[in-house]
Amino acid sequence: MKRIAIDMDEVIADANIRFAEWYKRDKGIEFTHEQLNSKKFSELLPADHQYLIKEYVYHDDFFVDLELIPGCQEVIEDLYEKYEIFITTAAMEFPNSLLPKLAWLGKHFPYISWTNIVFCGDKSIINADYLIDDNVKHFKRFVGQGILFTASHNHDVEWDVRVNTWDDVRKLLL
Amino acid sequence: MKRIAIDMDEVIADANIRFAEWYKRDKGIEFTHEQLNSKKFSELLPADHQYLIKEYVYHDDFFVDLELIPGCQEVIEDLYEKYEIFITTAAMEFPNSLLPKLAWLGKHFPYISWTNIVFCGDKSIINADYLIDDNVKHFKRFVGQGILFTASHNHDVEWDVRVNTWDDVRKLLL
Repeated sequence: MKRIAIDMDEVIADANIRFAEWYKRDKGIEFTHEQLNSKKFSELLPADHQYLIKEYVYHDDFFVDLELIPGCQEVIEDLYEKYEIFITTAAMEFPNSLLPKLAWLGKHFPYISWTNIVFCGDKSIINADYLIDDNVKHFKRFVGQGILFTASHNHDVEWDVRVNTWDDVRKLLL
Repeated sequence: MKRIAIDMDEVIADANIRFAEWYKRDKGIEFTHEQLNSKKFSELLPADHQYLIKEYVYHDDFFVDLELIPGCQEVIEDLYEKYEIFITTAAMEFPNSLLPKLAWLGKHFPYISWTNIVFCGDKSIINADYLIDDNVKHFKRFVGQGILFTASHNHDVEWDVRVNTWDDVRKLLL
């Protein structure tokens, strides 16, 4: 059985929506979906608001109850029939994310066992056939095939295998 | 540069001493080092005390400030000069262990970056040349060479590459 490793943020969990919610709460400024999808969140903020990004991602509640990226639940459930599925997230950078991420996975993907959840940093440590991720940096030393999941920050990045939606993942792997 | 993945409990962190401390505190019964080193902790307890083991490992403080396995700091520091070092621990089974384990690593191995720490379950997901671990189950589907670190529970387990101490690791890999 081939194995797929799947990233969390911007692949199955939408951290961008949380950024936008909190920014609206704190500064009263709202972004459209189009803006959020076209640029990195940091590029949308003026220089004197950049500090908020770090403040947000290190806040205990930032990773709690993030919204799902559309379609991921349905497609992963179908992939699960034909592949070994591992969730592999570079969570170690944000210790505050560890328990919320685990709770989030338990809620939205209850059939994925704790044995198949990986919190890491450098993803070259992952032994899988495919890695679905929004950061090409993780593909450089990865043993399998990197599949770039389109996110606001990677529109201009070159990579040979790219998917824009979970429907694209279904077409590619099922 | 070759890569070594190193387990935590019973390889660099001594959970057995914590078991013994808490058991003495709760039941007034003390074990000798010889007893602790020769049998699984559960084999030392009478049937009506077995429930304590689960109670302990799921307690928030169980993994806090565990003692170091002798020699691990010195040898890992030397290995670090010649190998990529990753810490790979099946921490997902015990969500209460995640933050204490991260804090413990920061305290005792401050030079190991967050990028090289992996909390996982099934270690066949680990891509490394060597895995130093006290559980042979992790070697079955591991891509590299498993190195069995002797612990009280694995004396009778057969495995071709075994080390009894960190000095043995030094002799094997340096």
